[in-house]
Amino acid sequence: MALIVQKYGGTSVGSPERIKNLARRVARFKALGHQIVVVVSAMSGETNRLIGLAREIMPEPDPRELDVMVSTGEQVTIGLTAMALMDLGIKAKSYTGSQVKIVTDNAHTKARILRIDDKSIQKDLKAGYVVVVAGFQGVDEKGNITTLGRGGSDTTGVALAAALKADECQIYTDVDGVYTTDPRVVPEARRLKSITFEEMLELASQGSKVLQIRSVEFAGKYKVKLRVLSSFEEDGEGTLITFEENEDMEQPIISGIAFNRDEAKITVLGVPDRPGIAYQILGPIADANVDVDMIIQNVSADGTTDFTFTVHKNEMGKALAILKDKVQAHIGAREISGDDKIAKVSVVGVGMRSHVGIASQMFRTLAEEGINIQMISTSEIKIAVVIDEKYMELAVRVLHKAFELEEA
Amino acid sequence: MALIVQKYGGTSVGSPERIKNLARRVARFKALGHQIVVVVSAMSGETNRLIGLAREIMPEPDPRELDVMVSTGEQVTIGLTAMALMDLGIKAKSYTGSQVKIVTDNAHTKARILRIDDKSIQKDLKAGYVVVVAGFQGVDEKGNITTLGRGGSDTTGVALAAALKADECQIYTDVDGVYTTDPRVVPEARRLKSITFEEMLELASQGSKVLQIRSVEFAGKYKVKLRVLSSFEEDGEGTLITFEENEDMEQPIISGIAFNRDEAKITVLGVPDRPGIAYQILGPIADANVDVDMIIQNVSADGTTDFTFTVHKNEMGKALAILKDKVQAHIGAREISGDDKIAKVSVVGVGMRSHVGIASQMFRTLAEEGINIQMISTSEIKIAVVIDEKYMELAVRVLHKAFELEEA
Repeated sequence: MALIVQKYGGTSVGSPERIKNLARRVARFKALGHQIVVVVSAMSGETNRLIGLAREIMPEPDPRELDVMVSTGEQVTIGLTAMALMDLGIKAKSYTGSQVKIVTDNAHTKARILRIDDKSIQKDLKAGYVVVVAGFQGVDEKGNITTLGRGGSDTTGVALAAALKADECQIYTDVDGVYTTDPRVVPEARRLKSITFEEMLELASQGSKVLQIRSVEFAGKYKVKLRVLSSFEEDGEGTLITFEENEDMEQPIISGIAFNRDEAKITVLGVPDRPGIAYQILGPIADANVDVDMIIQNVSADGTTDFTFTVHKNEMGKALAILKDKVQAHIGAREISGDDKIAKVSVVGVGMRSHVGIASQMFRTLAEEGINIQMISTSEIKIAVVIDEKYMELAVRVLHKAFELEEA
Repeated sequence: MALIVQKYGGTSVGSPERIKNLARRVARFKALGHQIVVVVSAMSGETNRLIGLAREIMPEPDPRELDVMVSTGEQVTIGLTAMALMDLGIKAKSYTGSQVKIVTDNAHTKARILRIDDKSIQKDLKAGYVVVVAGFQGVDEKGNITTLGRGGSDTTGVALAAALKADECQIYTDVDGVYTTDPRVVPEARRLKSITFEEMLELASQGSKVLQIRSVEFAGKYKVKLRVLSSFEEDGEGTLITFEENEDMEQPIISGIAFNRDEAKITVLGVPDRPGIAYQILGPIADANVDVDMIIQNVSADGTTDFTFTVHKNEMGKALAILKDKVQAHIGAREISGDDKIAKVSVVGVGMRSHVGIASQMFRTLAEEGINIQMISTSEIKIAVVIDEKYMELAVRVLHKAFELEEA
């Protein structure tokens, strides 16, 4: 008998019929003798409907009151889910974040979980109930309703699993696991049976949008056994996310290829090469709350250097304006330019730590296809390159083949 | 400076535009220096949508879980209302029933308020906030969400006014006050400036559906000054509901004419006239949770009597079946019959206590129009008759004229 936390997203609870399916799945786990905590999101579309309603009243909705409204999405789903279970003859009881209590800080719309009181849930589990908890929401010390921000239901699931010392936290999504890359781009992409936490972080942040990144960090911190599964498949095994490197010699060197075209590249040309220049360029960007991803600065040649970084495409205009208005003249840069026709492709794998030659194989593979590399950035378990966005799919396909990631 | 509780129903918050109108009205009161607590219902249609959703999952929804879901209707409205006020530059803060705390018993879907903790609200009012409270909902001693049942938002308004010792509780509806009778039947019907609590009770229970009856009883118990106003009129005075008889000599004898055609008449003919017979007839009806309104038993003639009572039209079939199956043979009644083509018309007024001749004037007026009276029932401040339903409008019009209730 295990204690399992199962998290179901908006599509899995998108209609009464789907909620009934979910209940039947939970019933099968319950019949095996497990204790089950179900965490649910709002029905798909509901959160956006509520935010839209709020904006009709107040163009920039007050965060406290927005949380009061938006949290009703999950509150409806927990009631429906508990009823669907009862309708199958299973004892079930719903909890809002505030009823649990999932105590958060008071950063409305993006609150962080401080602690979870697991007493009532433990009592209900012992009494044979399936406990249904509203994802995405909590309550601050003063009793104000808070939300954790988009994707926060994953975090609720993981945090509950940690608090309850659950044997496993299962995240049900519309994909059946983590793949070597996006199967829409490479049909031969293969589901990974397991992946390390660090690889998952790289894959998630690079655009494999399977899990919300904060929830994976949370799982890592509390060593929660996390599994991604499909809510539309009967008996999938999904992908297990592990927190220790596999000792197995057969472990693959590369786990997957991540990619995204959400970024734009900004280059500051002819920057005098002196201490503090990086701060002078990026300080004003950070002050404007523009997130920066890759940062590259090459060695100086003639006393000046070129400084390049990437931001989200939507923020390129803002970043360029800041640089031109506040930075260019100040630091004496020759030119500022932006390019949003780029893509980032990364090869990810813990195995590359102990295997040389991954980078050269990656670069050779791209060169053979005539794909020019504009930027390179590496970490312990990842090599990322920026290329012209029109070559993105090609690059992903040839790399997937070169590293032999296909279905066996 | 007064403390005013204003309650707005589903139509008054039925769209973002209407919520903005509501906020402008509250702003005008606030500008006069009053402290305002706003109680709101769910947006019209929302409660039914949620109940429908629940029934798709579970034909007879679990009451605890239904309350979890249905209470979200008002929770959305409090967020929107607080934002609409903020958008006008007014400090506002929302409260769910559980946040207030409005403590109720645990009778889910029809809970009764036990007590209200007014500390936080008083503090916010002193700090200059308009406080927006979700109607219709509360929380039981164990922290479960409860609802007060249909119309319960009126009760929330009155109960809050009592707990806060408010100067006035204003109930905003889609009518601009209490009328001598329904203006759709009698165009000359006149709005009453004030009406006593008892008259209001009679008018409300007889079908003048302006206020939810439990809220009026509540107001009477706690001596809350209650006013009914239109949410679509700028400067209406509405109708004040008072709890002491007006000493004014000019006080009208009759306040209004109430009517409804929701009832059906059931007659048990040829009942042996012996002690306990009323209980033997009505006991099984009550056991089946069928509400009975009028009850008439006439004096015995030949050792047998006829027993007549009224029930809601929808329950006539059920009541007849019970009588035929369980009662008729047992008590030896000759015949059981039902008639749902009836209407009840009542003349209501505290003044009739000290004025003889009201009943005879009523009966004469109906006789002059050839309207036959099937049943008569009287109280201190009301005379009700049951007639053929086809004469209902005619009866209301001629009585309204006979008692000189027209617009002056």
